[in-house]
Amino acid sequence: MGGGILFVVSAPSGGGKTTILKKVMAELPGLVFSVSCTTRAPRPGERDGRDYHFISREAFAEIRSRHPSGFLEWAEVHGNLYGTGREQVERLLGAGKDVVLDIDVQGAMQVRKTSAPVLIFIAPPSPAELEARLRKRGTESGSAIGLRLENARREMQFMDQYDYLIINDRLTDAVDCLRAIVVAERCRRRRSLSGLPVRTEF
Amino acid sequence: MGGGILFVVSAPSGGGKTTILKKVMAELPGLVFSVSCTTRAPRPGERDGRDYHFISREAFAEIRSRHPSGFLEWAEVHGNLYGTGREQVERLLGAGKDVVLDIDVQGAMQVRKTSAPVLIFIAPPSPAELEARLRKRGTESGSAIGLRLENARREMQFMDQYDYLIINDRLTDAVDCLRAIVVAERCRRRRSLSGLPVRTEF
Repeated sequence: MGGGILFVVSAPSGGGKTTILKKVMAELPGLVFSVSCTTRAPRPGERDGRDYHFISREAFAEIRSRHPSGFLEWAEVHGNLYGTGREQVERLLGAGKDVVLDIDVQGAMQVRKTSAPVLIFIAPPSPAELEARLRKRGTESGSAIGLRLENARREMQFMDQYDYLIINDRLTDAVDCLRAIVVAERCRRRRSLSGLPVRTEF
Repeated sequence: MGGGILFVVSAPSGGGKTTILKKVMAELPGLVFSVSCTTRAPRPGERDGRDYHFISREAFAEIRSRHPSGFLEWAEVHGNLYGTGREQVERLLGAGKDVVLDIDVQGAMQVRKTSAPVLIFIAPPSPAELEARLRKRGTESGSAIGLRLENARREMQFMDQYDYLIINDRLTDAVDCLRAIVVAERCRRRRSLSGLPVRTEF
C-alpha cells in the first residue's frame, strides 16, 4: 500500500455512520471515500458511483474471480453482496490520499488480513435507540428491522477488535471524535515516516 | 495506574509547547496538568505551584531518595533538576483524570519504563525558526540560546520513540493536532475498557 492511511469504519445499520462520515469528509481535505460495489437495490436518494457501484450478482462474481486483484474484502449482508475493489483503493493510497472504507465487521476483519488499516467502530448508545432510529428512517419493514437488530448484536461482539470506539450519542460529539481520530492518526503516521524533512534539517 | 490516560508531551525549548498545552487544556474538560518540581529559578510571570513547584536542590534530593514512591521521572536539563512526583500523578489518574506531563526526552523515556504513557513530540518547523523564537522570547543570553539549540538537536534524535509528532508551524494547527490526539486516545481507550455499558446492554 502507498502513502495514504487506510481507515475502516464499521457500524450497525442505523448507527449514524453515513451522516458522520459525510460531515467529517466535508471538513477534512485529503480524505476520500472508496465507493464499494453492491448487488443490493439503490435506496431512495442513492446514486450509482457515488454511494455504491450498483452491480449484478454476475458482475460481482466476475470481479471476485480476479484473485488477488479483485476485492480487498467482500461480504454477504442481509442477503446482498458488498465488495471493495483493491485496485481503486491502492491507487488512492498511492496518490497520498487517506482512504475511508465504509464496511461491515466481516469486511473489516478481511482487510486486516492483508493490510494495516485503522479500525473504527461507531456504536449506537443502546439497542432501544438503535431500534428507534431504524423505525424513524422508515425504509424497512418490521421484519427487516428485526434482522438488522439481530445483526447489530452480532457485530457488537467484534467491537474490541477495533482500534477506536465512537459512541454515537450526540451527533456533533461523534463527528468530533471521528475527525480527531483522522487528525491524530496523521500525527502518528508522520512520526514514523522516514526521511522526514525536519529530522534531516536538524 | 488508575483510570485516566497519561500523556507525555516533549518539545525543544521554544517549540511553543507551553502555549499549545494551555490552549488545549482550556478547551478540553477532564485534562489536567501535573505540576513538576524544579530547582531552577522562576521566570518572570511564573508562579510556584501553578507552573512548577520551585524547590531547593536539597528538597529535590530528599524526594528522589523516597524510592519507588518519589519521582516518576527526573532529569537534569540546562544545569537544573526537574522531576514529576509519582503519588500526585497516580492520584489524578485514579480519580479518572487524564494527566499531562510536560517533560523532556530523558524524562519521557523514564516514564515509559514504568507506565504506558501516550508520547507526543512537538517539533519546530526548522532550526532557523526555533532560533528566531528563542531570540524573540528575549529571556536568555546568546550563549544560553546556543545551549538550547544544541539540546534541541539532541532531543530531535528521540522523535521516533514517540507515538505522535506535531509540527508547530501554525499555532492553530498544532493546537488542533494536540486536541485531536487527546480526543482520539479517549476513543482508543474506550474500546479497550472492559464492562463497557454498551456491550453488556446489547
